[in-house]
Amino acid sequence: MTANPPIEGDVCRTEMECHQEARSHLPAIAERIIDHCESSSCYTHIDSEPIPSEGFVADIIDMFRELLFPGYFSREKLDPVNLRYSLGQTISKLYDLLADLIAHNIRHDCLRYNQSCSHCETRGHSLALEMMDAIPEIRQILASDVQAAFDGDPAAKSHDEIIFSYPGIYATSVYRVAHKLFELGVPLLPRIMAEHAHSITGIDIHPGAVIGKRFVIDHGTGVVIGETTRIGDNVRIYQGVTLGALSLPKDAGEKLRGKKRHPTIEDDVIIYSGATILGGDTVIGSRSVVGGNVWLTESIPPDTTVMMETPRLVIREAKHAAGS
Amino acid sequence: MTANPPIEGDVCRTEMECHQEARSHLPAIAERIIDHCESSSCYTHIDSEPIPSEGFVADIIDMFRELLFPGYFSREKLDPVNLRYSLGQTISKLYDLLADLIAHNIRHDCLRYNQSCSHCETRGHSLALEMMDAIPEIRQILASDVQAAFDGDPAAKSHDEIIFSYPGIYATSVYRVAHKLFELGVPLLPRIMAEHAHSITGIDIHPGAVIGKRFVIDHGTGVVIGETTRIGDNVRIYQGVTLGALSLPKDAGEKLRGKKRHPTIEDDVIIYSGATILGGDTVIGSRSVVGGNVWLTESIPPDTTVMMETPRLVIREAKHAAGS
Amino acid sequence: MTANPPIEGDVCRTEMECHQEARSHLPAIAERIIDHCESSSCYTHIDSEPIPSEGFVADIIDMFRELLFPGYFSREKLDPVNLRYSLGQTISKLYDLLADLIAHNIRHDCLRYNQSCSHCETRGHSLALEMMDAIPEIRQILASDVQAAFDGDPAAKSHDEIIFSYPGIYATSVYRVAHKLFELGVPLLPRIMAEHAHSITGIDIHPGAVIGKRFVIDHGTGVVIGETTRIGDNVRIYQGVTLGALSLPKDAGEKLRGKKRHPTIEDDVIIYSGATILGGDTVIGSRSVVGGNVWLTESIPPDTTVMMETPRLVIREAKHAAGS
Repeated sequence: MTANPPIEGDVCRTEMECHQEARSHLPAIAERIIDHCESSSCYTHIDSEPIPSEGFVADIIDMFRELLFPGYFSREKLDPVNLRYSLGQTISKLYDLLADLIAHNIRHDCLRYNQSCSHCETRGHSLALEMMDAIPEIRQILASDVQAAFDGDPAAKSHDEIIFSYPGIYATSVYRVAHKLFELGVPLLPRIMAEHAHSITGIDIHPGAVIGKRFVIDHGTGVVIGETTRIGDNVRIYQGVTLGALSLPKDAGEKLRGKKRHPTIEDDVIIYSGATILGGDTVIGSRSVVGGNVWLTESIPPDTTVMMETPRLVIREAKHAAGS
Repeated sequence: MTANPPIEGDVCRTEMECHQEARSHLPAIAERIIDHCESSSCYTHIDSEPIPSEGFVADIIDMFRELLFPGYFSREKLDPVNLRYSLGQTISKLYDLLADLIAHNIRHDCLRYNQSCSHCETRGHSLALEMMDAIPEIRQILASDVQAAFDGDPAAKSHDEIIFSYPGIYATSVYRVAHKLFELGVPLLPRIMAEHAHSITGIDIHPGAVIGKRFVIDHGTGVVIGETTRIGDNVRIYQGVTLGALSLPKDAGEKLRGKKRHPTIEDDVIIYSGATILGGDTVIGSRSVVGGNVWLTESIPPDTTVMMETPRLVIREAKHAAGS
Repeated sequence: MTANPPIEGDVCRTEMECHQEARSHLPAIAERIIDHCESSSCYTHIDSEPIPSEGFVADIIDMFRELLFPGYFSREKLDPVNLRYSLGQTISKLYDLLADLIAHNIRHDCLRYNQSCSHCETRGHSLALEMMDAIPEIRQILASDVQAAFDGDPAAKSHDEIIFSYPGIYATSVYRVAHKLFELGVPLLPRIMAEHAHSITGIDIHPGAVIGKRFVIDHGTGVVIGETTRIGDNVRIYQGVTLGALSLPKDAGEKLRGKKRHPTIEDDVIIYSGATILGGDTVIGSRSVVGGNVWLTESIPPDTTVMMETPRLVIREAKHAAGS
């Protein structure tokens, strides 16, 4: 693609003159952009509670990770003495930011959807307290996830490597926090946190999904786990796995909101890369193995291995002489 | 992997001594690295117009998003009074940065490819004005994208949730701006913006593609939409969909540059996850549905549903007794 | 999902009172969180060498890219005069940071796994020198990668566009540096760098893989290349390709650590999108072509083209009258 020729008749003598001439057209354009906000074809967020920027959400996730894996993501070296101070300070900061964010998100929905808006602050504080209180329990289940990742991965050199670098653990950590917030009824924030993790890892877990302990996602890019999925204990899934909904009519949004649309995966199941399992009534029985690229829309019983029949491959003769 | 043994004969008494001894070898290595720049096996960008860092591109995208969805990504709460000031300021800042970046990118290609380099500044300003002028129109088409996403997704709680958190809307917003810049003939910048969005969302839309209104990408990780793709109105695609080129000879670069190599998708089509549609002559007729994982290299007529034949699955008997 | 009703009996008169009341519950929760660190179900990193945050790793990668492609990612315009100063300064800064990081990572593993910890500093310096010394050689192989990307991609407008914006080149650059560090026996850091690139690009290349020159990854989201993969010269792969291990028993971690588990790809092979090739004994012969979505667990000879048999598609009649 070559650059366009300069626009004729629009050439000015000096750079400064040129800048001034061009800028003189800007106010009219700005007016048009601003006035167009009132058009029905512009979504605006005016007179609404501002929703914290992604920066705050990233901060919250970082603080949760510091508390969930103490010492791993701290800047300073932790020892038994400064541990209390360092964690205490993170707890205090996280609590304040979280209470504030939750209150904002609740007030946002109150104002936005004309609900009566009372006690948003109070509820922000009490829900943030409940969230903080769940940290030891989330730590415990994440420890089981790390152990399971190590047990099954020959490329893992240590538990530390998993905690420091595995995207599956990052995504699962954020999911476990976002899921708790979702359960507590916090609007918007859990989904924004989940999409932040999706952006970092390529792993898209809806905070509404329910997932047991010793959960492992390996590599993970392209994994999608839908809102009403239920996953048991000790399940391992690989990159590109979709746990999704069956095909929907185009107006499905309203009709299916809130219904179970995604599958149930029982304990001790392995699902290899690229497999797709769809539908709210689909159940993968305990200890089953779903092979790579398998496409399933019906249940399979426990202790079953399902694989694609080896596809017939078309093998063409050599087109080049060796060495060409 | 155990750590290597310390290198023999290279042990110094104090950390400082050690540091100094090692550093004394650095200048010779630095010379080699610098001199190697003149080798034919080093791509350098010397005496060329510097191309703005990713930081600037991220800033530009953020400012466009503020203008496309007024109030959603602002730091402060917008009301009808401060709206004009806030948007006006963003418009002014964006215009200046954009005019500068466009001029840089044009001058880069002029200098680089020995074209005559005149009026780069002037063209930077006039193209930036044209881009700003297109904002209301882009807003309008993005509003149709948001509405279509809401209509078809039972997991969406509100339009706000979609605008705040859906990667498909992020990627589509950046695409619509980058496509306009591509149409205006701005070199480099549109592709750098598209790859920024690709990095954030896993969705890779070439700015050359032509895409109609009410366009929805759900989940999106792994989506690839090639340079010469044409997509009609009201099309919905899911994660892992490729709209690509047919297999190419290894020297295809020169031969096929500029030709239509990617498919045409007509109005009201749905393409489910993992489907691959290839080739410049391939047309998916209106109102058709392409099922998950389908691989298509030929056209299908309107009102057609194409699905994989249910693959024969190999089901192995239970290897474990229940409860083992 | 509607917001929960306010929690009864927990409503305070003023915002401040409310905040204070809620915050009074925090110390007890903080104590529980801190005390739980001593539980066996909490992974902690206490009395361990802190591992540099992701920020440092991103800085290191940026400096390597500046040196590998001189002038492309610099803030200032480089000319033959300031080139020496600019590169010299980057070399000096990178060396110091790298030596420090390598020493930290070695000491981390010494302390952590009770190895004798001597000369970590010395080894940090000598390994950093070896790494810096490899830069011209890495540049040379990356130049071949850029040339090969340009030769095969009709959408590439220039070599500059590839270096500035292609995720495949980003991932390959980071891989080539991380692989050298892996070869030198540096623990943790190579994997953390690889996962940073994975997060940016969706391309997951284990630093242990061995990859020849003129290597191209196009689009790249979802690519997985396992630890013991070997790839020859002039290989091109597309998005969603997995070069992985065969299915593993759940306790495979310990048993298979260090064994060859991933395939060998010989020279001049093309692997199209979504193909999966598994197993340590699987060899794809020279000049072969593996078609899209092919699933291979056995070797194929040189000069072979393997494609999926065209799947039987189920084509349903029109459900809507045209124009509905």
